[in-house]
Amino acid sequence: MSRVMNENDAALAIIRRGAEEIIEEQALVQRLKRNTPLRVKTGFDPTAPDLHLGHTVLLNKMRQFQDLGHHILFLIGDFTGLIGDPSGRNSTRPPLSREEIAHNAETYKAQVFQILDAEKTEVCFNSAWGEALGAAGMIKLAAGATVARMLERDDFKRRYAAQQPIAIHEFLYPLMQGYDSVALRADVELGGTDQKFNLLLGRELQRQADQEPQVVLTMPLLEGTDGVQKMSKSLGNSIGITDAPPEIFGKLMSISDELMWRYYELLSFASLAEIEKYRRAVAAGENPRDRKFALATEITARFHGQAAAAKAGADFTRRFRHGALPDEMPALTLASKEGALGLGLTLKQAGLAASTSDAFRLIQQGAVKIDGEKATDRALALPTGETYLIQVGKRRFARVSIK
Amino acid sequence: MSRVMNENDAALAIIRRGAEEIIEEQALVQRLKRNTPLRVKTGFDPTAPDLHLGHTVLLNKMRQFQDLGHHILFLIGDFTGLIGDPSGRNSTRPPLSREEIAHNAETYKAQVFQILDAEKTEVCFNSAWGEALGAAGMIKLAAGATVARMLERDDFKRRYAAQQPIAIHEFLYPLMQGYDSVALRADVELGGTDQKFNLLLGRELQRQADQEPQVVLTMPLLEGTDGVQKMSKSLGNSIGITDAPPEIFGKLMSISDELMWRYYELLSFASLAEIEKYRRAVAAGENPRDRKFALATEITARFHGQAAAAKAGADFTRRFRHGALPDEMPALTLASKEGALGLGLTLKQAGLAASTSDAFRLIQQGAVKIDGEKATDRALALPTGETYLIQVGKRRFARVSIK
Repeated sequence: MSRVMNENDAALAIIRRGAEEIIEEQALVQRLKRNTPLRVKTGFDPTAPDLHLGHTVLLNKMRQFQDLGHHILFLIGDFTGLIGDPSGRNSTRPPLSREEIAHNAETYKAQVFQILDAEKTEVCFNSAWGEALGAAGMIKLAAGATVARMLERDDFKRRYAAQQPIAIHEFLYPLMQGYDSVALRADVELGGTDQKFNLLLGRELQRQADQEPQVVLTMPLLEGTDGVQKMSKSLGNSIGITDAPPEIFGKLMSISDELMWRYYELLSFASLAEIEKYRRAVAAGENPRDRKFALATEITARFHGQAAAAKAGADFTRRFRHGALPDEMPALTLASKEGALGLGLTLKQAGLAASTSDAFRLIQQGAVKIDGEKATDRALALPTGETYLIQVGKRRFARVSIK
Repeated sequence: MSRVMNENDAALAIIRRGAEEIIEEQALVQRLKRNTPLRVKTGFDPTAPDLHLGHTVLLNKMRQFQDLGHHILFLIGDFTGLIGDPSGRNSTRPPLSREEIAHNAETYKAQVFQILDAEKTEVCFNSAWGEALGAAGMIKLAAGATVARMLERDDFKRRYAAQQPIAIHEFLYPLMQGYDSVALRADVELGGTDQKFNLLLGRELQRQADQEPQVVLTMPLLEGTDGVQKMSKSLGNSIGITDAPPEIFGKLMSISDELMWRYYELLSFASLAEIEKYRRAVAAGENPRDRKFALATEITARFHGQAAAAKAGADFTRRFRHGALPDEMPALTLASKEGALGLGLTLKQAGLAASTSDAFRLIQQGAVKIDGEKATDRALALPTGETYLIQVGKRRFARVSIK
């Protein structure tokens, strides 16, 4: 007798997709059975958003919940943003004005509503209840955890052991994040694996407030185009969702086959069943480049529309002459402290030329292409923070990230 | 050439009297030279006051500053009192209502103005600026110290090492106390030696607020009538300032000669020069009991007036027949879990009777006196929390504290 998958089993399979951990899955199953929309919270920094595909892993999960009929709480953590880093030690966290936060929120919306359904998304700001706590409320909130518990958090533990200063207000931030779950009466909170401690603290504070503790779902941190380090603009291995279509397309075409399947799971809207079908086709002999081409088209279209994606695909094919791009190519990260790395040096360090003079010779011969375009200026320097697909002659390729 | 003591030298000598530590004395000297009244802060709990002589050590120091022309800030820490112990672990710290705090403040005033000059005392409440901090202000305040710094405080260090929980709000209380110094622009803060960490934190927060850091003056914790442990009602070795005149008088007459000189320094309003004269007189043969009698008269008069003190002294003399009370007598602390200790057992445990049956025989013979009054009821039990002067026959005495 074959087991018929019921609606909640199907929902659970979608929710599980790509998730690192669900705490606790049984509680989630119980809540799904109630057949009332769950309140699903995800928190975002109020700093100027410049989202890359790594950030969209969470957004996609939110979208999946949304498609399953749940209520999405898009929380902008503006309360601590208004304060910034009061110790002044962290210059990357200046206090933001209300105007800056409002402006950033609009930019966020413009970006995330390319994935989320704006109609079904509640955007909220924790300053609404953070300020209402008052000084006394903040003291009561601080009573919700112990010093020892807080020092269990990886980064605090490491810094305390290394005798690096931890200012006491840093202990209040995770508590504030946990309190957001209480204020929002969240059923589920989503976050990256690096957020696990904070998400669990939300459960504790909800218990203390006599609420049912939220289900915590962590998503992995997406690897960048190098397939090794997590995607990060500063590592030069990221694909920004506001990048131009040819850039998104080209970068996705440069990833390894292995990473392609990872990206399918975490970034594509194709169902798991469809992806399984693709895998079987490739195993049976289909060229994985065609599969990568389809992924690049889907993702480019998500942020720039079908027409732009089709054009980027056609341009890519023309530039590289279909069949010229190998399935696999070396991926390297080179470093430059000057904001850019000379092309000659890049070719040499990437092993595409024996020496810089050899590199200059190749450039002058017109044998070098960057992202499919011929490069003939030997004085060209490649800016850091980007990944380049470099081709020398017909056969030698490398994906080079410069940081 | 004899050195003439100037006014500030004299002031400094008065300020130094009995002090455990002055941080930093040079800064105090500099401030005294300005010849403007210093703002001298001392903080008090907003719980129901039931002051004993131990508390008056600080009040006397405040009075000395007042007599030197300085401005006394009598700070009632009601802000944290309104919150109580938010963890609920400490049942001795329930949240107080505003009415309770107002009532306690009036009781405080009635008690402390027996020592302080009401006209020259500014009573303040830190809820005034504590609540105005808001949640954001509390976070900024928390940035003023590090976790490692806070774990240097003796009790935190001990509890952390013993893996006893420290709730995070406990770190906020010393910061709040320090912030009080900022809000009050305190020049000097007085406190017991157990307060040193908190007082020093006030200096740090003032520095961060670009204020000149306050001078910290710590006073020793006064020993109780047993001369060993610090005065505490629960240890049964305390003399309450609202105790009846015969009780204050009798307890003071029961202290050792050594402790008497300590009490002279910390409790008497006699000048250091006068006390030195008394010491010389006793060394030259004066009966120390007469000196003790003078101290008991001074202290009793402070809280009940000259007439009541004179009567208490006369009653005491009559009861003990002048000369019957020895200079020195053993002081013991006995424990009872039942709220009172039977007189027979007390006599036995104090070594005043060989056995309880021996004790009962002595009671029936009328040979036992408690605080000078004959005790003939063998069923008598002595309540805990008090100190008794017990006499058996003409020669055997003991001061017995029952806790």
